[in-house]
Amino acid sequence: VIVAPVSFSLAELAARVGGAVHGDGAARIGRVAPLETAGPGDIAFFSNKKYRDAYLACRATAVVVEAGAPEVPGVARLEAANAYLAFARISTLFHPPPRAVAGVSPQAAVHPSAAVDPSAELGAFVSVGPGVRVGARTILHPGVCLGEGARVGSDCILYSNVVVRDGCAVGDRVILQPGCVVGADGFGFAFDARGEVAGAPQHYKVPQVGAAVIEDDVELGANTCVDRGALGDTVIGRGTKIDNLVQIGHNVRVGPLSIVVAHTAVAGSTKIGTGVVLAGQVGIAGHVEIGDGARIGAQSGILGDVPAGATVSGTPAQPHHDWLRSQAALHKLPELVREVRRLREEIAQLKGKP
Amino acid sequence: VIVAPVSFSLAELAARVGGAVHGDGAARIGRVAPLETAGPGDIAFFSNKKYRDAYLACRATAVVVEAGAPEVPGVARLEAANAYLAFARISTLFHPPPRAVAGVSPQAAVHPSAAVDPSAELGAFVSVGPGVRVGARTILHPGVCLGEGARVGSDCILYSNVVVRDGCAVGDRVILQPGCVVGADGFGFAFDARGEVAGAPQHYKVPQVGAAVIEDDVELGANTCVDRGALGDTVIGRGTKIDNLVQIGHNVRVGPLSIVVAHTAVAGSTKIGTGVVLAGQVGIAGHVEIGDGARIGAQSGILGDVPAGATVSGTPAQPHHDWLRSQAALHKLPELVREVRRLREEIAQLKGKP
Amino acid sequence: VIVAPVSFSLAELAARVGGAVHGDGAARIGRVAPLETAGPGDIAFFSNKKYRDAYLACRATAVVVEAGAPEVPGVARLEAANAYLAFARISTLFHPPPRAVAGVSPQAAVHPSAAVDPSAELGAFVSVGPGVRVGARTILHPGVCLGEGARVGSDCILYSNVVVRDGCAVGDRVILQPGCVVGADGFGFAFDARGEVAGAPQHYKVPQVGAAVIEDDVELGANTCVDRGALGDTVIGRGTKIDNLVQIGHNVRVGPLSIVVAHTAVAGSTKIGTGVVLAGQVGIAGHVEIGDGARIGAQSGILGDVPAGATVSGTPAQPHHDWLRSQAALHKLPELVREVRRLREEIAQLKGKP
Repeated sequence: VIVAPVSFSLAELAARVGGAVHGDGAARIGRVAPLETAGPGDIAFFSNKKYRDAYLACRATAVVVEAGAPEVPGVARLEAANAYLAFARISTLFHPPPRAVAGVSPQAAVHPSAAVDPSAELGAFVSVGPGVRVGARTILHPGVCLGEGARVGSDCILYSNVVVRDGCAVGDRVILQPGCVVGADGFGFAFDARGEVAGAPQHYKVPQVGAAVIEDDVELGANTCVDRGALGDTVIGRGTKIDNLVQIGHNVRVGPLSIVVAHTAVAGSTKIGTGVVLAGQVGIAGHVEIGDGARIGAQSGILGDVPAGATVSGTPAQPHHDWLRSQAALHKLPELVREVRRLREEIAQLKGKP
Repeated sequence: VIVAPVSFSLAELAARVGGAVHGDGAARIGRVAPLETAGPGDIAFFSNKKYRDAYLACRATAVVVEAGAPEVPGVARLEAANAYLAFARISTLFHPPPRAVAGVSPQAAVHPSAAVDPSAELGAFVSVGPGVRVGARTILHPGVCLGEGARVGSDCILYSNVVVRDGCAVGDRVILQPGCVVGADGFGFAFDARGEVAGAPQHYKVPQVGAAVIEDDVELGANTCVDRGALGDTVIGRGTKIDNLVQIGHNVRVGPLSIVVAHTAVAGSTKIGTGVVLAGQVGIAGHVEIGDGARIGAQSGILGDVPAGATVSGTPAQPHHDWLRSQAALHKLPELVREVRRLREEIAQLKGKP
Repeated sequence: VIVAPVSFSLAELAARVGGAVHGDGAARIGRVAPLETAGPGDIAFFSNKKYRDAYLACRATAVVVEAGAPEVPGVARLEAANAYLAFARISTLFHPPPRAVAGVSPQAAVHPSAAVDPSAELGAFVSVGPGVRVGARTILHPGVCLGEGARVGSDCILYSNVVVRDGCAVGDRVILQPGCVVGADGFGFAFDARGEVAGAPQHYKVPQVGAAVIEDDVELGANTCVDRGALGDTVIGRGTKIDNLVQIGHNVRVGPLSIVVAHTAVAGSTKIGTGVVLAGQVGIAGHVEIGDGARIGAQSGILGDVPAGATVSGTPAQPHHDWLRSQAALHKLPELVREVRRLREEIAQLKGKP
């Protein structure tokens, strides 16, 4: 943890994030820290009830809380309507985002036809192909590869070994975690069972001639893949945040402002609306539509459209609450089988009655 | 989308792909485009009934269709027995695969003992280890790493940051999407519970001394991993196509001509036959056999052998149609539980009758 | 397969690994090989009963076996209590781990403030940031990127294109397979629905200011991701082995000595104890605890705590044996639905009786 040599009074912090102080507003805060290890000079965060004991035992100078959190003797509270947001903003004051150190490493490879803003930072072994554009204050960490004609906007951070393939576009303020791949070929093959083309059966490659477009304020996780379109583009809409190891197929549209958790896979041409949440390890079939604000439970397999605002789980998907009951009932299914057998025997006996 | 400055008459296209023109065969076609955005001079593709409205409203000069597609006024049809294949071939005419620009970047690192064909193209920051062989017209994009003794055939494309580890082999006409890893160590450890080796318990690493072999005409997706064998090799058979983020364990054999969709994992020593389809997020246990032509539904967990030609889903796998019914019935399980309770009460009443 | 030019007598091998020879102890062994292809001079391994026929037909000079394995004419047996461990140790004699060739490639980029042990090996296009420390005899393959302040211990192997981000720590004798990412930002956003910060709704990025810590003797698979902590650290405990394409969220603790199979995802702040086994494609929710020695079946979705020593499967998890019965019963559910309908009709008839 790199600690910035800055400090704020608790009252200053509250003023900056719009919260109310209960306790000593003049107390100096120099660090954000977890509840369990926070000490004097630290500010921590409490919301999840699982950590109530840690909160009650905490030794931080102050804690950011929601309204109604109990008082802890000796610990000031900074109450905010959206306490998590307030804490995140405070953490950002102590840990501001990295800023580009303008310049191109002598060990980078920049094609002469590329247009790299002079304020951008390009590390060693960064490869920038012909016709590429890189915007102001963007940081390309060592090992980033930008294919021919790729465009990356301003104020982006591309971590090491990110690949943006030819012709793809990345907006402004985008963060791509290490190893993320933008614009690999979509998975499209036409089966030539009769060997029309080559005299023997093959999966004939369908050219993937669209691009992948990453709009402003998107973040993509480590080793996540967003394939280019087959025809037309794959689009990750503004402000959408995608976790690690996610697969987005060709011609998918996600967002804006959606959340996609790790190991989720979205098959080709599916449209995912605004503010949708896909929990981890979800699979979504191709050519379906997920309405605005829908929430899909972890490990669900979605085979058809999901209406706006729905909260669904399972395979095929059902309302999340029903799914919980189905799963619970499933645990009792062997007993139910035995019960039905007993009922059958009792009925047989009853029928045998005179 | 990069548009090649070529055009063909519709009749020429039909002749090249073996289709029949309904409409003006002399019409000039300069581009492939999606149904929704195609205009004059474009050729589009229609097959999936979901897009029938888009087809009927389309403004393309021509559309590739299967027999029986309705007529759209002002739009020519190119009818082909395998319409998707015909469209893919037409798309390839407008978007031919990239061709190697012979030469080695001055910023590549090629070991003197490596044998790189002079017609191959090696980008910046490509690392080629001792004894490596690279075939004719193969393209190694920036950041590709080939370990000691690796072999890559002719006419391959290895995109940025692909890794082929020591001793592994890649055939001809293979495409490896960015970040794909060939030949990482298989996951093999012998648990030394009594600390025989080091005096304390450990998972002792089993040397992974086999290779990973990628046969001709295979494509591997972005960030997909094919582990090397423990003893003997892992083999991806000729013409098999594997999507992104797939895990292939040590000593697995897949293909030829199989299809593996994203996020699927195949555990060690499993044999997957010819023309098998593994849909997305499938898990297959180790040491099992999947027969030729089998099809495994998305998210299935396969614990045992699957016979040739079977179409199965679920965990444990069952015939796909039965699985669909089981899942549908599962949704009604809570109601079934209540129904059985009611029957039990009615039987109790009946038994109470004189 | 690279075969080392060494040979041992069978008796020597048995002495080194603590086994007993049945057969000719003076026989020379020059190679480890699979049962199916082993010949004269080779030693193979037999344990899994699935391969009994191959064992009985094998032509190896010797086979490492557990007590009670049948005799095969002409084939010596090396019997060991932990036969798999014995075989692994023998394989290591023929295939010793790679040793660093001291030196830094002239095509590497090492910041002047970094401290790289002179015995370490740094390949081409290795990027070592400011303040980084690299220990004795550690091998950094081409394309490895170590961010500012990262530390890597002694006797490690980091394969090509591994990324260890700023401030993260890797212990001694750690192996990181290609493309593995240590210390990407955790997935943490505070939803600002009212646009407090920017005047429009956004997912506000929560700074991820902790590190990822990889303890001694850990192995991480290809393209696996271990995120840095939000506050405090993410820790992979000593001797834990993680397969390919695994996702470990922020502030998770795993191990020591645990096993995590491919495609598993662990959400934030979850604690996984000592000697736990997570089979493939498992999903574990955030903020839960998995007790020491627990075993979680493949594809399970774990939503709550799992007690030490438990063996569970499914979603929500249940004892593995119960889960197997539930899944089997699920296959019969459509028939059960029909059966209940028949019983209902019979009861209706009975009630209609006078």
